[in-house]
Amino acid sequence: MRTLRLAMAQIDSTVGDLDGNTSKIVQRIDEARFLQADLVVFPELAISGYPPEDLLFKSQFVGDNMAKMHDVVRASKGICVIVGFIDRDDGIYNAAAVAHDGDLVGIYHKIFLPNYGVFDEQRYFRGGDCCPVFIVCGTYVGINVCEDIWRSPGPTEVQCSAGAEIVVNISASPFYAGRRSERFEMLASRARYNETYVAYVNMIGGQDELVFDGASVIHDPNGNVMAQGSQFEEQLIVADIDVDSVLLSRSQGEQAADHSPDSLVKIGRPIVVPVSTTSSDSKSILSPNAVTVLDGVEEVYGALVIGTRDYVTKCGFEGVLVALSGGIDSSLVASVAADALGSDNVLGVAMPSRYSSEGSLKDARELAENLNIDLRTVSIEDIHSANLETLAPHFYGKAPDITEENLQSRIRGVLIMALSNKLGLLVLTTGNKSEMAVGYATIYGDMAGGYAVIKDVPKTMVYELAEYINARAGDDLIPRSVIEKAPSAELRPDQKDEDSLPTYQILDPILKAYVEEDRSFDEIVALGFNADVVANVLSLVDQSEYKRRQSPPGIKVTSRNFGRDRRMPLANRYRQF
Amino acid sequence: MRTLRLAMAQIDSTVGDLDGNTSKIVQRIDEARFLQADLVVFPELAISGYPPEDLLFKSQFVGDNMAKMHDVVRASKGICVIVGFIDRDDGIYNAAAVAHDGDLVGIYHKIFLPNYGVFDEQRYFRGGDCCPVFIVCGTYVGINVCEDIWRSPGPTEVQCSAGAEIVVNISASPFYAGRRSERFEMLASRARYNETYVAYVNMIGGQDELVFDGASVIHDPNGNVMAQGSQFEEQLIVADIDVDSVLLSRSQGEQAADHSPDSLVKIGRPIVVPVSTTSSDSKSILSPNAVTVLDGVEEVYGALVIGTRDYVTKCGFEGVLVALSGGIDSSLVASVAADALGSDNVLGVAMPSRYSSEGSLKDARELAENLNIDLRTVSIEDIHSANLETLAPHFYGKAPDITEENLQSRIRGVLIMALSNKLGLLVLTTGNKSEMAVGYATIYGDMAGGYAVIKDVPKTMVYELAEYINARAGDDLIPRSVIEKAPSAELRPDQKDEDSLPTYQILDPILKAYVEEDRSFDEIVALGFNADVVANVLSLVDQSEYKRRQSPPGIKVTSRNFGRDRRMPLANRYRQF
Repeated sequence: MRTLRLAMAQIDSTVGDLDGNTSKIVQRIDEARFLQADLVVFPELAISGYPPEDLLFKSQFVGDNMAKMHDVVRASKGICVIVGFIDRDDGIYNAAAVAHDGDLVGIYHKIFLPNYGVFDEQRYFRGGDCCPVFIVCGTYVGINVCEDIWRSPGPTEVQCSAGAEIVVNISASPFYAGRRSERFEMLASRARYNETYVAYVNMIGGQDELVFDGASVIHDPNGNVMAQGSQFEEQLIVADIDVDSVLLSRSQGEQAADHSPDSLVKIGRPIVVPVSTTSSDSKSILSPNAVTVLDGVEEVYGALVIGTRDYVTKCGFEGVLVALSGGIDSSLVASVAADALGSDNVLGVAMPSRYSSEGSLKDARELAENLNIDLRTVSIEDIHSANLETLAPHFYGKAPDITEENLQSRIRGVLIMALSNKLGLLVLTTGNKSEMAVGYATIYGDMAGGYAVIKDVPKTMVYELAEYINARAGDDLIPRSVIEKAPSAELRPDQKDEDSLPTYQILDPILKAYVEEDRSFDEIVALGFNADVVANVLSLVDQSEYKRRQSPPGIKVTSRNFGRDRRMPLANRYRQF
Repeated sequence: MRTLRLAMAQIDSTVGDLDGNTSKIVQRIDEARFLQADLVVFPELAISGYPPEDLLFKSQFVGDNMAKMHDVVRASKGICVIVGFIDRDDGIYNAAAVAHDGDLVGIYHKIFLPNYGVFDEQRYFRGGDCCPVFIVCGTYVGINVCEDIWRSPGPTEVQCSAGAEIVVNISASPFYAGRRSERFEMLASRARYNETYVAYVNMIGGQDELVFDGASVIHDPNGNVMAQGSQFEEQLIVADIDVDSVLLSRSQGEQAADHSPDSLVKIGRPIVVPVSTTSSDSKSILSPNAVTVLDGVEEVYGALVIGTRDYVTKCGFEGVLVALSGGIDSSLVASVAADALGSDNVLGVAMPSRYSSEGSLKDARELAENLNIDLRTVSIEDIHSANLETLAPHFYGKAPDITEENLQSRIRGVLIMALSNKLGLLVLTTGNKSEMAVGYATIYGDMAGGYAVIKDVPKTMVYELAEYINARAGDDLIPRSVIEKAPSAELRPDQKDEDSLPTYQILDPILKAYVEEDRSFDEIVALGFNADVVANVLSLVDQSEYKRRQSPPGIKVTSRNFGRDRRMPLANRYRQF
């Protein structure tokens, strides 16, 4: 029986940290060698981090990354290694290096370069035109990169037609809710269709707005999962693959590959590269790795935690500030921060005004106590009065309006930024996606800060996450009163969100249809919503683009976030109704 | 003698304003018809505005734009019209419609889609594969779009090989200093090489960060300019083209086109489409249009003025606020604003603190008087004191640092935003590119506002522009003392920019090398700069990305601006030294 011991290293690379990423890779190679793996695989652009964006235009950056790739090659003594890096030739390529026993055996160039959604790869890379299959320990291994395996027919089909028994795909696949199961379905279908093992190695960790969720996986030729990693954790997943079963299955079944040879030739030229003969060792027995499979809001919460942890620490901060209003958004963000960084590294700040209710301050205190985080209270009253007095001559004869509300929010912005500067802590903002969408937030006020943790979380999901936190703790970490009270910005007496906006149960599906699905006004009304409500919501979304453009980055958890994913003009007169 | 009367309509389209853009187009068609033009040409995506960005994903938007294209077709009675629009077929295309006498005669699909710099066209469009030549009044006219003519061999060569005597290129070409002359050089070379007339029709106006400068032009087959439009102004440029001279020149000279037929076939299939026979009228005599050719800082000033005017008015504002510190940056911005919107629509705000010098307030007053704009003075002293008192317990035992400086700047940010909200005026920020590069600005403080007029203007160019303004006025509109005093943020006693930064004469060339040219640390030191200074500047640039990400948009005037042009990761550990 031919068996290949395959190790999948789902690591957390930091963009630009060539030294750190390479050390991490070499350490995992050593670990895989100790576990007698024949082949160890790292994610897409593991050496440079993903996405490096315009660093790719810096010639020295690309050169430094290639030097690190050669360091990894040198570290491949006695084992075969596949690692993502930036290759430079007649252009630059999103590439996978194949190393064996200290030699660079081959390089694969990603063929399909995504240039949609959050991706801009055609801005940087040339596409490859070759689909090599490497013979590793007697096993035919096809290698491709991320997008390549989403296309069918694509490099996977070419490589299988050239004999690949295992297709290894290295990825940096951005998370959104439900993405893991979509991905598993696609991979299972590729495995079944091509009667091949498919090993998918995905990066983990947060990079600016993106989170990579890991969940690396091997599907067998029947499309069943035979090994997998957890989401959001660095892991080395090791499995023994019974390669002969592929040939057996192919000889018994009908030949599935029904793509015309012509269509395959257009994708890339197949070549076969011998790398190493059969592995000599009698192998130790593997114990299966522990896997936690997350679903629904659990998965989203995991993304928020690692996204926050990675942004804060990769930017060099140790701790954060969160303005606690006693509301559900800031309560959720404080909980994420405490899980991401530890309670000691989170400082809550309550900034009550003349309009803050008694209950709000009490709720903020109770939350801080439950999460075991420190809370400072800074009243804005004196500053608020001084501002109103200074502005009075300029406001003379003009009725109070949104100006006075924004003023309070901006005074808080000044105070929390002063604490941030003085204490060296990053400010996490607390606005949710529903608010960001309709502009129900004050620019330079509650929007002031370095990272907007729940910027892509709709308000209705904020409630689900709060319930999840409490259910997981078996206790109301987020006080029941916080969850049950009517949402309010508390910027004027008795203010409620629903004075200005439809209820979130109505608002959120309208926003999803417009923002994430590009549905038209007529289509949304046809879903059963009141036309005036829809018109109002769409206008608010269109008019708030300028605020979002200046908002801090936040974690993508839906199929389309504000920011990298949705790029709208500012001066824009298009209206659908 | 065959003569074609060609009208080039360089109009200012607004993104999304399908009704407004179409009315403007129809009006110019009528004007061209009145002037007995045979053919009138409009810029790239004149109907939708450029760049429409993710509006292109909205199916209704594309449909609405196509309906408007048909309105333009109906308006083409008795004349031939070429207009840029979004075409939808098996995908969407950046397209030119050719209409004649009420009929849609043909459609050209842009072949080369730029996806670099500020461009993301491969995110949206499919590329064309056909290079039609239209016979308009007996003249062979090749049509292509923007990037197409920058490529050689490209559609221009294919169309000339198929008989085109005039190549019409419709563009929306973003301005930067010196771009017009680069463009003219390229166009002259295409005309000479292909022995053809080249008519280049460029959009004018500002759209978010971009300014399109117009300067539409016709080059004759010798590469000489035979007609041109001004920059930054809507114009209809009409010229009579002596088409027979092309054939004469081609028959006399050697055949220049030395591209292999194979290389041309790969670009696109040539086809010839008859449109209309010779024009019947005996034509009136044309008087040449008035042209102002701008150079150097004049050109940049023109871009700042139209960029500001268009952003403010296209976003629906009538007037602006500018914080006047008495420094040169805010003086320049106020001058641009007064030229863009009229003095009556600009309100200056002086916000002195305990550290403001007597001279600063005096200079601000003098500037406001010279520009004939109103000035309000709002002292920050009381609010400043209230902030310091409120924060004192939290700052106890900690030495004063940058926190106290930022605090003053942010108090000003709150005040000017309050005035903005109450008065309905847009805030123009006043930071220059040198400051934006090294992060010498306070986020939510002096960076708070809707539009950052001189964000892409290096400080040394700020001085040149100030001198230009005064020279043009024949008077020191910007007071001499403003130009001559040492730059200072005045956030602590006797502060000078040069306490923290190298002089701008040293800083600006380092920044240009690093930011605009992607030169490495070693290369910049090799230019003759002190290594410690270079290291410090590069670190400051790298560490300030988070501020730039939250800054307002500003006008691109260099070959690479911060924003659309330079897309760097935030969490980024790459250091070159």
